[in-house]
Amino acid sequence: MLDKIEIVKPEDIEKRSFEIITDILGDTVFPALHESVIKRVIHTTADFEFAKLLNISEGAIENGIKAIKEGGNIVTDTMMAASGINKKELGKYGGRIVCYMNDEVIAKKAKARNTTRACLCMEKASADKNNRIFVIGNAPTALIRLYELINEGTISPDLVVGVPVGFVNVVESKELFKTLDVPYIITDGRKGGSNIAAAIINAMLYMNRV
Amino acid sequence: MLDKIEIVKPEDIEKRSFEIITDILGDTVFPALHESVIKRVIHTTADFEFAKLLNISEGAIENGIKAIKEGGNIVTDTMMAASGINKKELGKYGGRIVCYMNDEVIAKKAKARNTTRACLCMEKASADKNNRIFVIGNAPTALIRLYELINEGTISPDLVVGVPVGFVNVVESKELFKTLDVPYIITDGRKGGSNIAAAIINAMLYMNRV
Repeated sequence: MLDKIEIVKPEDIEKRSFEIITDILGDTVFPALHESVIKRVIHTTADFEFAKLLNISEGAIENGIKAIKEGGNIVTDTMMAASGINKKELGKYGGRIVCYMNDEVIAKKAKARNTTRACLCMEKASADKNNRIFVIGNAPTALIRLYELINEGTISPDLVVGVPVGFVNVVESKELFKTLDVPYIITDGRKGGSNIAAAIINAMLYMNRV
Repeated sequence: MLDKIEIVKPEDIEKRSFEIITDILGDTVFPALHESVIKRVIHTTADFEFAKLLNISEGAIENGIKAIKEGGNIVTDTMMAASGINKKELGKYGGRIVCYMNDEVIAKKAKARNTTRACLCMEKASADKNNRIFVIGNAPTALIRLYELINEGTISPDLVVGVPVGFVNVVESKELFKTLDVPYIITDGRKGGSNIAAAIINAMLYMNRV
């Protein structure tokens, strides 16, 4: 059975993977920057449906790259997304990951207010003007709170990656968010996740690198 | 638009999500323990294809739960999977997460041997007999190394969660692994990921809790 394993050097595995993804996508044409994001999400999930689900507003990727290059921080709604983002690459520009999900004070406040921790994390992150990119990979409640904070003029992020996953208010939160005039990358429908959130940011970090 | 948001108490969101998943799965019947794992993976991905892709060997879940209850450690091939597993719940039984992916010595050795870090992480983790569950959410090279370590009799894990994702040797590594007589939970095909790996372990931790 071991003879069925293709011998690929460690440093070539990713390149070979992207070649296979490109082959499978065939003649589908995407805008150049979109293509890098779409392919990295497929690389992370092996789910080609994301080629259709990824909804990228005009200039969103350019905006995100600019914010990263200027040392902007990235706020996430899960430790998993925080864990998946390439912090070494982000750190080169001076930015850092901000995630308050393990903050005990946040947990207590959320309970007292009968809301989610993710929701309060967004409020707390709103206080720092250098938190320029918001990444929601899990909680629609965070995306809804973000909608409110933007709508009332409290914050004006350079980019929102809105890819919560699931069944309760997930589709509704995304549709709501799209009514705003804010650069976004959203996965339409129920699909999304922290791994996808991290892949989208990493795609932008690696575009920067080139 | 905000009026389209369903009002669900934070503590009820997960319960409501599982009700919706159950509705969508309809009349499909799964063995009871399998059902909890399958539903949690769908909860994490909103991807119903996993109901078909999850391949659970006989007694695998029971074995995993037993190892957890006896304080066994869980080895992961990514920090993201480590980050997604409920460590508070695992800690109740005395077990901990073991992940060497950020170990600088491992990185250097992998380069010198022209192999992947994930592969060397499996070797290092093999030295501790209390590392009883191995969870591969990303690297097929780790699953292949695990196959070799088991095949040569170095280790005999209580459970292997083999859900690498991607395009190079992913399907092959899973098919290879299934030829072993070791309890496994595998996602057939290319799909998988660290989020799915964490969801499978969390499903077992929450079954323990009940």
